[in-house]
Amino acid sequence: MKVEVCLTPELLHLFPLKGKVVVVVDILRATSCMVTAMAHEVKTIIPVAKVEQCKALQATGLICAAERDGKKVEGFDLDNSPFSYMQEHLKHKTIAVTTTNGTQAITLSAEADSIVIGAFLNISTVADYLLKLKKEVLIVCSGWKGQFNLEDTLFAGALAEKLKSEFSCEQDATVAAHKLYTVAKNNLSEFVSTAQHVKRLAALNITNDIAFCLQFDTYRVLPICTNGKITNVLS
Amino acid sequence: MKVEVCLTPELLHLFPLKGKVVVVVDILRATSCMVTAMAHEVKTIIPVAKVEQCKALQATGLICAAERDGKKVEGFDLDNSPFSYMQEHLKHKTIAVTTTNGTQAITLSAEADSIVIGAFLNISTVADYLLKLKKEVLIVCSGWKGQFNLEDTLFAGALAEKLKSEFSCEQDATVAAHKLYTVAKNNLSEFVSTAQHVKRLAALNITNDIAFCLQFDTYRVLPICTNGKITNVLS
Repeated sequence: MKVEVCLTPELLHLFPLKGKVVVVVDILRATSCMVTAMAHEVKTIIPVAKVEQCKALQATGLICAAERDGKKVEGFDLDNSPFSYMQEHLKHKTIAVTTTNGTQAITLSAEADSIVIGAFLNISTVADYLLKLKKEVLIVCSGWKGQFNLEDTLFAGALAEKLKSEFSCEQDATVAAHKLYTVAKNNLSEFVSTAQHVKRLAALNITNDIAFCLQFDTYRVLPICTNGKITNVLS
Repeated sequence: MKVEVCLTPELLHLFPLKGKVVVVVDILRATSCMVTAMAHEVKTIIPVAKVEQCKALQATGLICAAERDGKKVEGFDLDNSPFSYMQEHLKHKTIAVTTTNGTQAITLSAEADSIVIGAFLNISTVADYLLKLKKEVLIVCSGWKGQFNLEDTLFAGALAEKLKSEFSCEQDATVAAHKLYTVAKNNLSEFVSTAQHVKRLAALNITNDIAFCLQFDTYRVLPICTNGKITNVLS
């Protein structure tokens, strides 16, 4: 059994997905938001790739979140900050979400046997599930518009660290992600502060989200995407 | 002025190439072979993407090298070992070459202002040239069939190390490559021994090539590809 890392969705076509469990990660901020939402009892999240699809779902009466380039798209109900998903009125609701990178990575992974939503916020819950499941794992980093990013790769390395006693981690991308995480783990915030997306968010005055998204195991939730809908299978 | 790293040719379409100097690297072994060939007075190398193109050039009387999956393709004159390019009878000759990854990366980079062939064997010569040229740099890692690999990424990190006093190295892929190199540099051979392609070559009993390709600055040559032909501009 092996763990592999897909460093950006642009490389996803190089990996067979059938028979595998995919863990999609977009630390800043889509999958961190989804984990936070599930922890605050949002019932279902529907990830969609395009703003227009999200707009159409909003027209049916759904609460909808849309983010592009770090900013909320005008006319939508929610942005892409984890703090926006802690509101009382969202409990037991269904929310449709589209983001620049994370929701694309999820929709592109549809052929996998199952899709787990991972973040530092629920990393141990994800790892425990994978250790019990004993299936081939592919960690899909959402990146930034097709490009490699640091924060998702560090998550991949951190997850490989938790799985390496039971899984083979020999793929070059997994070795690199794990090595980077080993270097970064004692000061993850400082390491991530060099990331391009942190600078992009800082330019939009978004800084609290970053520290929040770098916390380990704040929540014990396991969001899994089945037939295009994400629910917390531990609830 | 900045240095960026393209971690595999699959991501090359995300980078504008006009106005940039591209450094193509395929440590194991295409660009290491090209540097070795130039150091042994091969006059010109013609990189081609496909075996059939190389076959057609062989039919015109050219000496031709073809490698796929680490092995020499039947019917060609040379394989993809640097030791094969040290032969007396190749001096002042033109050789057409096709390999699994490196020659694809070169041909895909055709729109760049210039294409430099880089390897550990000539890394300081490449760095000195780039420091004088003062143009935006994109290091293109050849990878393996579209996938990320360790050895090319380590070269990218080593080159970034040599350029960082004069160039901005803020792209996430450059930060990652540089950090990996910083970790690996005191025992590059051991670090690279974990690479998938080292295992692939070892299964073909190819081991001497690896130690050879990890040597720094054995040669002072600067192979540049212009109009589809690679020559040593320092000769």
